[in-house]
Amino acid sequence: MKIDLNSDVGESFGVYKIGLDEEVIPLISSANIACGFHAGDPAVMRHTIALAKEHGVALGAHPGFPDLLGFGRRYMEATLEEIRDYIAYQIGALQAFASSQGMKLQHVKAHGGLYNMAVKDMRIWEAMAEVISGLDKELILVAIAGPKREELQEIGKSYGIRMAFEFFADRAYNPDSSLVSRRESGAVIEDHQIAAERVLKVVTERRISAKDGTEIGVIADTICVHSDNPAAVRLVKRIRETLFASGIEITPMGNFL
Amino acid sequence: MKIDLNSDVGESFGVYKIGLDEEVIPLISSANIACGFHAGDPAVMRHTIALAKEHGVALGAHPGFPDLLGFGRRYMEATLEEIRDYIAYQIGALQAFASSQGMKLQHVKAHGGLYNMAVKDMRIWEAMAEVISGLDKELILVAIAGPKREELQEIGKSYGIRMAFEFFADRAYNPDSSLVSRRESGAVIEDHQIAAERVLKVVTERRISAKDGTEIGVIADTICVHSDNPAAVRLVKRIRETLFASGIEITPMGNFL
Amino acid sequence: MKIDLNSDVGESFGVYKIGLDEEVIPLISSANIACGFHAGDPAVMRHTIALAKEHGVALGAHPGFPDLLGFGRRYMEATLEEIRDYIAYQIGALQAFASSQGMKLQHVKAHGGLYNMAVKDMRIWEAMAEVISGLDKELILVAIAGPKREELQEIGKSYGIRMAFEFFADRAYNPDSSLVSRRESGAVIEDHQIAAERVLKVVTERRISAKDGTEIGVIADTICVHSDNPAAVRLVKRIRETLFASGIEITPMGNFL
Amino acid sequence: MKIDLNSDVGESFGVYKIGLDEEVIPLISSANIACGFHAGDPAVMRHTIALAKEHGVALGAHPGFPDLLGFGRRYMEATLEEIRDYIAYQIGALQAFASSQGMKLQHVKAHGGLYNMAVKDMRIWEAMAEVISGLDKELILVAIAGPKREELQEIGKSYGIRMAFEFFADRAYNPDSSLVSRRESGAVIEDHQIAAERVLKVVTERRISAKDGTEIGVIADTICVHSDNPAAVRLVKRIRETLFASGIEITPMGNFL
Repeated sequence: MKIDLNSDVGESFGVYKIGLDEEVIPLISSANIACGFHAGDPAVMRHTIALAKEHGVALGAHPGFPDLLGFGRRYMEATLEEIRDYIAYQIGALQAFASSQGMKLQHVKAHGGLYNMAVKDMRIWEAMAEVISGLDKELILVAIAGPKREELQEIGKSYGIRMAFEFFADRAYNPDSSLVSRRESGAVIEDHQIAAERVLKVVTERRISAKDGTEIGVIADTICVHSDNPAAVRLVKRIRETLFASGIEITPMGNFL
Repeated sequence: MKIDLNSDVGESFGVYKIGLDEEVIPLISSANIACGFHAGDPAVMRHTIALAKEHGVALGAHPGFPDLLGFGRRYMEATLEEIRDYIAYQIGALQAFASSQGMKLQHVKAHGGLYNMAVKDMRIWEAMAEVISGLDKELILVAIAGPKREELQEIGKSYGIRMAFEFFADRAYNPDSSLVSRRESGAVIEDHQIAAERVLKVVTERRISAKDGTEIGVIADTICVHSDNPAAVRLVKRIRETLFASGIEITPMGNFL
Repeated sequence: MKIDLNSDVGESFGVYKIGLDEEVIPLISSANIACGFHAGDPAVMRHTIALAKEHGVALGAHPGFPDLLGFGRRYMEATLEEIRDYIAYQIGALQAFASSQGMKLQHVKAHGGLYNMAVKDMRIWEAMAEVISGLDKELILVAIAGPKREELQEIGKSYGIRMAFEFFADRAYNPDSSLVSRRESGAVIEDHQIAAERVLKVVTERRISAKDGTEIGVIADTICVHSDNPAAVRLVKRIRETLFASGIEITPMGNFL
Repeated sequence: MKIDLNSDVGESFGVYKIGLDEEVIPLISSANIACGFHAGDPAVMRHTIALAKEHGVALGAHPGFPDLLGFGRRYMEATLEEIRDYIAYQIGALQAFASSQGMKLQHVKAHGGLYNMAVKDMRIWEAMAEVISGLDKELILVAIAGPKREELQEIGKSYGIRMAFEFFADRAYNPDSSLVSRRESGAVIEDHQIAAERVLKVVTERRISAKDGTEIGVIADTICVHSDNPAAVRLVKRIRETLFASGIEITPMGNFL
């Protein structure tokens, strides 16, 4: 049994440092690297790729909205054409740093507001699939695990690319397998042991308890973990230990998709 | 006999339009396309590549300093490492749009303040050569024709890339084959007929009259022309007519270098 | 009888020129000057104030979202606190250039996406009123004429500031006195004579024909005109002629509110 | 005897936090607040002013180059007109947040590359004095203590504004009272006790030992201290203790200039 662990990294900018990249990159298998629009800058991109390469972590582009001030978290009323152009630009920029270091990108995962918009509007996943397909059909598009899985698989198929689905290690799920909104209490699972066991259950049984206790099916290729604070890093370690103890291999999604 | 005509294009940004790209692109053979730092944006990059492709014009990245407010014309005290990172980022971003349209980049030419800094500091040409070499050894680095030709050729050779040298159609030259500074009178040649004949002489005789009347040698692979006003476009037409009348073929530098 | 004519100006940025400011500023009585977030830059702000001062045109801040790439036209999911901060920042920056030239700002009018968001969400007008009230109670807040007039007046009153209401010279109106959406046909009135007569009717009779022919009441203090193309400038001239012919004085809103 | 302590604060941006503002602001008497060009954003500016107000710390604008990526540290080839416009814009923006909170700015101190350029080019101090004079003659311009004192005083006088001179607590000085370049060893004084005693000597004796042991005169109104790391904050505390022990009052420069 294999699973991927992905995390958003490379989000520093100029003199501004953010994220515990040095600590978390050795612990994950796929790195989502910011590309200079919502976070990251050329030097940070180069450096983050070097760090990922050193630890055998697969590289992914993490494109976002051109909103450094809002860290790309805010919705922007961008057209599909604008979104396609923004994504192509950012993937290309990151590819340059990867290829300078003899590496290739493995995947693409949208950031923040763009990701959240996609969750509500399938045409954005389609826009991303179209861009990726035009750039490099080997690139995997990472989407959210949950109720839209079939539709998303169809999009991937129609553009000739692989889709990957991610499960959020520290988030509660609704009975329809969508995420519990952060505006609701209990949206985030604070207990590390519970979170780690949920991850294990998703990997081994493809099931999870929804917020109301219902058992729901969740098929995930990669587990999204965070790296912005020491507790988040501790959770990643706990997840790794739990998975290892059950003989599950943590490896980049590109190795098994 | 063959010569290339290059021009800076794709410098619009958002709602802001600049340059007569629709008029000049059909007249040139190599397009220097802004990459979003000093000018250009993702939509403009995509559109400019489509326009160049339609007219059989070869594509080049035109990276500059991250200074949209100053249009990349101002010197910035960037380190060589920063310059390498800025260039890699911008070339990569443009490559994405080229490859989305089934095209490849032919060349790289620095913009404004960055180009001018390179003219004064050979280490910057070397930084550019290093980046290009690491990205794609087929890419040609465009530098200024003139007294540093030998040194620049050495740099290209040591990084395994081709160098191209450009002659400025509308600029006067010093006896040492450097450009007459714009601060001096007579720096710009206003008469289109004279400018076109100088271009012809550079192509056919590899010589030109310097400002003081001395005949100096100038070896150029490509002629830099402008597109920011109707008179500039008329000069391009005059140069084309003059070259055609002498049986000289205008073709992308990649075809003969 | 008095009326104000306002127009968005000072929208150039760096080398990028936009708008026919030199032509339209002599024709209007209130200038909405971009403040560097969605358009405009420090030099443009200084220059635009000088031009307005020369022609006796009252100065207004025209704050927008921090989205130069989208010209501030796109909705952004900014919080009310962010909006307040953005507006205060921009008004302050413009005030500096006004006071350097011995001038004071007369009014504030939001731009593009921010204005449109306010039209749909009264809390944004309230956020603007709060900021203005905290900065300078002499500043007038310009809002859209139409069905929300009473509520907007209440907001102004509660913050101790004056409100002004604007009528769009070239736009069709719904029977409820809201604007016909640009997505509908007939949203823009192309015929200059008709547009000018509508303006006259609003000024003299405080009534206008809605799109369906219904006569509706519209109370306006200022008429919004455009300056982005020669036809727009011709419309402004036509409106001026029509108003002059009826003895109506065009004067800054601050003179009569 | 009175002295001012100033520090650069408010340099966070969006989600990016930098500097120990909460710790250092209670310890200083004058805050140099970034204005959104090289650092800072509207929310940070508002918040930093609130913090300074709470602790009775005087407010200063800390304008810099429009280079967030380089944190305003890099020289930019800006014209004097551009510099004047950048400074006016930033002071105005900060004034808005001050006046919203019932406060006034006390001083202006340029940041990083702009400050360093001024040290080498007196015309930049003059440009700053001109802007300040046009905005508010109560504003104090902070310049470097050292060999140019007389010239700087003349500039202040000719523009009708007060000048303040700052001494750098942790920097070595040349015999001509200029700073030892950071490129030389011993440029930064690491020992807190020595640094604090130097400050005391400058305040009480208006003299200091230069790097070569020569006693040189240094007249300072304000001491520049840092806040970017815990050791810097400890140095500020040590300086305060040393000054208090000698009965010197730490108070905003505006109180005694």
